[in-house]
Amino acid sequence: MTDTSLWQTPIPALDQNHLAQARQRQDGLTKPPGSLGRLEQLAITLCAQQACERPSLERVRIAVFAADHGVCAERVSAFPQAVTGQMIANFVAGGAAISVMARHLGAELEVINLGTATPPPASQGVVDERIAAGTANLARGPAMSHAQLQAALAAGDRAAGRAAEGGAQLLIGGEMGIGNTTSAAAVACALLAEPAERLAGRGTGLGDDGLHHKIQVLETALARHGESREPLTVLASLGGFEIAALAGFLLGGAARRLPILVDGFIVSVAALAAVRMQPDLLAWLHFGHQSAEPGHARVLRALQAQPLLNLGMRLGEGSGAAVAVSLMRAACALHNGMASFAEAGVSESHPAAGDAP
Amino acid sequence: MTDTSLWQTPIPALDQNHLAQARQRQDGLTKPPGSLGRLEQLAITLCAQQACERPSLERVRIAVFAADHGVCAERVSAFPQAVTGQMIANFVAGGAAISVMARHLGAELEVINLGTATPPPASQGVVDERIAAGTANLARGPAMSHAQLQAALAAGDRAAGRAAEGGAQLLIGGEMGIGNTTSAAAVACALLAEPAERLAGRGTGLGDDGLHHKIQVLETALARHGESREPLTVLASLGGFEIAALAGFLLGGAARRLPILVDGFIVSVAALAAVRMQPDLLAWLHFGHQSAEPGHARVLRALQAQPLLNLGMRLGEGSGAAVAVSLMRAACALHNGMASFAEAGVSESHPAAGDAP
Repeated sequence: MTDTSLWQTPIPALDQNHLAQARQRQDGLTKPPGSLGRLEQLAITLCAQQACERPSLERVRIAVFAADHGVCAERVSAFPQAVTGQMIANFVAGGAAISVMARHLGAELEVINLGTATPPPASQGVVDERIAAGTANLARGPAMSHAQLQAALAAGDRAAGRAAEGGAQLLIGGEMGIGNTTSAAAVACALLAEPAERLAGRGTGLGDDGLHHKIQVLETALARHGESREPLTVLASLGGFEIAALAGFLLGGAARRLPILVDGFIVSVAALAAVRMQPDLLAWLHFGHQSAEPGHARVLRALQAQPLLNLGMRLGEGSGAAVAVSLMRAACALHNGMASFAEAGVSESHPAAGDAP
Repeated sequence: MTDTSLWQTPIPALDQNHLAQARQRQDGLTKPPGSLGRLEQLAITLCAQQACERPSLERVRIAVFAADHGVCAERVSAFPQAVTGQMIANFVAGGAAISVMARHLGAELEVINLGTATPPPASQGVVDERIAAGTANLARGPAMSHAQLQAALAAGDRAAGRAAEGGAQLLIGGEMGIGNTTSAAAVACALLAEPAERLAGRGTGLGDDGLHHKIQVLETALARHGESREPLTVLASLGGFEIAALAGFLLGGAARRLPILVDGFIVSVAALAAVRMQPDLLAWLHFGHQSAEPGHARVLRALQAQPLLNLGMRLGEGSGAAVAVSLMRAACALHNGMASFAEAGVSESHPAAGDAP
């Protein structure tokens, strides 16, 4: 680990002046105080993150990081490994859920290939950041070398840099990688000192036997890994290229003062690792949804995160975060567009806040 | 009760052919089956409601029903009664939360005045359906006559008719009426045989003393009302003009085969009364959000409803439903725009659904 620049760059603090101004504005809008619920705090936080009076989320950047996982040799997924490359092609062809949501939101979608087991079909528009043809089998040895980890983190940081240069106002990281709920569960177990059975889930659709087997594979991997909770060591030992790249993307986004909307289980595990590197990252993160993948609730609790949605989604790709963008945009529209009591000539509440005499 | 046409018109059934087709389409899209969670069933239900293969929610109609409440004489609200009329003006001037959300969604907003205590400021664009200068004080006697109830129900039905004529693909009913959480709680208590303390909440912002007083007022009203759970009797005895109009709006919308997105506590109480009149109405209702008003959870349970959002909102006006529209639109976009496994050349899951050998 020679290059420590990324996770030692300080993450900037939120703008406290705009935070206070935004809170004052919310209290004067024509509604009972607090009656917009979490949309009020969302708008206030965005003002502090964007350092402005009227936040905007018109320009959303979605970066989907894809890679394969050597642990698929242990048969931990309901889908064949070839699907990772096939889905990369589907992302850029526009047929995947995240492609549809990007169009629906008017968001920019970037697909980054960190390394698939078989080269994906030739596709225009995939950013080539291939490190290797997938990670090594984390059940038998470290998933990646420290040099590979650095490469993945740096690839994520570069994606954040491209988004910032493109004028993005909000970042979403997504992922694709057959086998990556196994890798993410392993990383989360190591960081949180939890047993495998607590954080393992059915991923894309394991049956009971498949889930039981996945837990055994995780137990083998965690026994091999040992006790270290140091995030870089854990990522190299148990992570995936796309999970490490997501950690770099989140750190790189916050370093550039960009708010980030976190997706489901995999991205939240990357966020947990990144927050362990740089605790100040947390102030830049919003959480889009609670996944049906059972380990997600535990990871969210560790991050003290309250997701905006709970719709039973478990697709990945950034899709849950993409669905939640509209709630953040609604928060902005209300903050920016509502009249104040004074402007509208509406009476405010009784001085005694409605306590009857 | 001479005119019983509205609640005896049969509510049509959903289209079972399009329901089955939509379910089949969802299962073939490039994602693990079920991984879009509730968005899948949302899209399927909309296909059955709109009787089509590709549902659309471009044209949304929001009708906000406003009226005053005689029970305000008992000092049950944190805001003065003049606010109802002032907010009507704010709705059409564009400064209220629902006005902002209507613009944000590209939805049509219609404001219907069922009767305010003081005439509202002259406003272009308010539909005049005034019945009286507010209801009578429901703590001392029936809130309205049966003729007034008929007028309110019919006004709601006419609003649904205008929406259908305008080509609306989704209806949202909203409400404004200082004191109407008291009326709605009274209606819900009577319909559900629950005590006042179970369903009373702080409304626009009562303190502890105010809430205690509101519960006493409700107990007085419920003792006067007696045991009847017949929905028309309950609405006349304890309802508000806007609550009755909402019941007519929901029944009239479903009778015209239009899906409806229900807002918070007040609209859900109107829905409960309407479903008691016509149980088949329920198949046409979606539920936008769970309000912070504590009685809402009980009413939703009675309707076997799972709201899409839980953001701690408690504003009314239809605002929670308006925020949820984007989730329904995302469900449509995904259903309509995603590629199938065959189209995208993506492998489906292992025959044994991922159970390792």
